[in-house]
Formats: sequence, C-alpha cells, structure tokens
Amino acid sequence: MLKYQQIASDIEKYIVTHELQQGDKLPVLETLMNQFAVSKSTIIKSLDLLERKGIVYQVRGSGIFVRRHRRKGYISLLSNQGFKKDLEEFQLTSEVLTLDTVKPPEEAALNLNIEPDEDVFYLKRIRYINGQTLCLEESYYRKTIIPYLNTEIAADSVFKFISEGLGLKVGFSDMYLQVGKLNETEAKHLGLKQNDPALRVETVFHLTNGQPFDFSKITYNYMQSQFFIQANNYYG
Amino acid sequence: MLKYQQIASDIEKYIVTHELQQGDKLPVLETLMNQFAVSKSTIIKSLDLLERKGIVYQVRGSGIFVRRHRRKGYISLLSNQGFKKDLEEFQLTSEVLTLDTVKPPEEAALNLNIEPDEDVFYLKRIRYINGQTLCLEESYYRKTIIPYLNTEIAADSVFKFISEGLGLKVGFSDMYLQVGKLNETEAKHLGLKQNDPALRVETVFHLTNGQPFDFSKITYNYMQSQFFIQANNYYG
Repeated sequence: MLKYQQIASDIEKYIVTHELQQGDKLPVLETLMNQFAVSKSTIIKSLDLLERKGIVYQVRGSGIFVRRHRRKGYISLLSNQGFKKDLEEFQLTSEVLTLDTVKPPEEAALNLNIEPDEDVFYLKRIRYINGQTLCLEESYYRKTIIPYLNTEIAADSVFKFISEGLGLKVGFSDMYLQVGKLNETEAKHLGLKQNDPALRVETVFHLTNGQPFDFSKITYNYMQSQFFIQANNYYG
Repeated sequence: MLKYQQIASDIEKYIVTHELQQGDKLPVLETLMNQFAVSKSTIIKSLDLLERKGIVYQVRGSGIFVRRHRRKGYISLLSNQGFKKDLEEFQLTSEVLTLDTVKPPEEAALNLNIEPDEDVFYLKRIRYINGQTLCLEESYYRKTIIPYLNTEIAADSVFKFISEGLGLKVGFSDMYLQVGKLNETEAKHLGLKQNDPALRVETVFHLTNGQPFDFSKITYNYMQSQFFIQANNYYG
C-alpha cells in the first residue's frame, strides 16, 4: 500500500470512528498535513482517492465534506471485490454446484476476448445471505491467468484467493444489468417461483493491466437484492 | 470548460472518429503533448479525467489504452445527466401526468434533508423510448434551488434546464436499486401486468456544493431496461 493510500484509509477510519455524517466538514488541508505528518501533495492524493471512492466530496473554495449515505443492507454495485467486503455484517455462504475445466461457451469467449479452445474454469454456485438464497452465479475464469481453483476456495471467496493467493490486481469491470423473469431451473435454485422477477447481472472483470480474466453471470433473488450505487459527475 | 476538460473531450472525439477499440493503445504522453500543444500536467489531468469517465485505462509502465465496452442500447447508470445523453440515438419522449407545488412526503423530506414544510415541485411523468414505455418517474425538486419549472420543460429534460437554464452544476448522486413486482397503478401506466417484474431506482441528486436538490423514484419497464455500469477499482 502506498503512502497516500494508507493516509486515505486512516482518514476513512477517522470518519467512521468519529461518526461523522454526510455534509460534515473535514479539517482544512494544513491541519490534515500536520495531523498525518505528510506533505501537501500526499494529502491531496489521499483526498482525491477518497473522493473517487465516494467517501468525501470537495467543494472548491469551501472545503472537504463527508459523503456518507449508505442505507443499511444495500450491496454496493461498484465495489469490485465481490460481496464479502460489503456484507461483512452478514453471514455469507456459498454452495458449489459445479467446478470444472471446460471450453468456453460463445458468450464467455466473446466477453473474455479469447479463442474458443482456450481452457477456462467454469464455476456454478448458489450464494446465501443469512441462510437465504442471495443469487445463482456462473463464472468463467481464464486458466492462463487463474491456473488453480478448488471447491474450498470456490465456497469461500475466489476474489480473495486471486488477490491474496495469486497476487493478481483486480482493475476495472464492465457490468450489464437486465430485469426479467426466472426460468424453472433458476427458480428452483433460488427457492422462488418460475416467472418471479429476476435481476441478471453480467460482469467482465479485468486485471489492472486490462486483461479480462472473469466473465460472470449472476441471477439475484429479488427479495434479497438491494443495491447501492454512488455516482460522480465527471461530465460537467 | 477548463483546458484539460477540453483536451479530454478532444481525445474522446479522437477515439470515436478513429474507431479505436478496447485495448488499443493511445500515443505516448510526449506525442499527445505535441499533438494538442499543451503541458504535461494538462495532459495528465485530461487522461485522469478520461480514466474516471471510463474512456481509457492506464497501465503503469506500459501506456494508456482505450476502454470501450458498451453494448448498444444499454443505459449507463452512472451518467448523471438524465437519459438524454445516453439515448441520443433513440426517440425519447415524456408524458407529464402531474406537475405541482407540494409539501414533501416524509421519504422525500428525509432524502432531501429538508423540513417537512418546505415547498417542493412534484413531477410525475411517463417516459417513452421509441414509443414504448420506458419508466414511470416521480421527482421532488427543492423550490429554493429550482424556483421555476413548467410542463414544457418537464416534457423535455429537467436536467438540461437546470444546467443550461439555471446554470446549476450537478454533482454526485446516490442511487438505490431494488427489484420487486409492479402494483396495479404502475402496471397500468407502463402498459404491463400487475406482478410483472419492477426495477425501482431511487436517486438523490446533489449539486457540486453537496446540496441535495432532487429526490427521484423511477420504476422501469423491465422489457425496455438494460443498464450498463463501468466500475473502477479504487480499493486495491
């Protein structure tokens, strides 16, 4: 972790432990510089990171303010770390239905931008939150990037293994959302009825070097799915 | 528009007109500096903005690459400009059902962080895409910030009026998504059946100074709603 990332994390902890609320003003730059004993450029980089993460907002000529608007129990759609991070207060478990080496179906090959004869891991699992079905997930991982997976890892957190076990850095991702109706198989897996509402999310995850490594298709149990998104306006 | 924003916009146009694809490498910094006749710090700020907007990704020690993964017809959930911008290729119209000055209901007062006796505009409209219902929208605008609205504006684009007509700057927003089933009224407005899938999105829009000015509740026609989200990983 770089210095400015560490300071950003410290400021975030400060906001949480002091129970600062949306709109509360942070100390001025000079005070933060002294408090954390770092240079102005480091503090500026830290605050910029916190702004991107949606922890603060900066008003030119006025100061830095706390941004804090999460409703309890909402999953952040933009956290790229899988669910584990958001749902720490919940009991999250997985049941692995399939873990296999396969050739990718066409949509997976297209989204991963690979040849149809390249080996991928196919993982299908049901995820549970506090004992209720949260979602049905199918993922395709490139074996050239993630050479090893087992059921134990798949039942816990594949992303934790990828970053901590394999030392890979997860970068940006592209997500596609659609709402539809559950088919019979999905309904059975989720404990719902056929034609009940289905939220389907397809995601292409990339490493920081831009390589797509995971194409996942998730169908959520609509009764358990509340999502939170923070948007910044970079278009003005 | 500041210099670096102008350059960012020029680079974006360059990517589009040259039909660059995801993963295509941009020229190196020095070339871009010469091409646009600006300083290194300006180019870096421009590229940083483009990275935040999801137009490029930067790989340390390797270069700047094009990020371009939109599927056609998907609405970006993170564009803060209302739909107009995303759906330029579509015919987008609105039917205004109600436009009135009211006292905010409790949830609106809470989300806008205002007193229950402050006046707000209440706007209810159905939005159509290519003649099909896209969504049913209810919005509450603070009259102290948006003192004027009329049916003509409401039938076109309120956000366009806010930024171009009133000169206000739209900043960040907080969105909450939930999937459920349509009630009878919603179904009637959307031309669907009761208990059909409903995607509900609540958004609190803020000005760049942090003031919430619009609380909106949108219920989407599931048959017309495909959403796209670009996520960056600022958590590593």
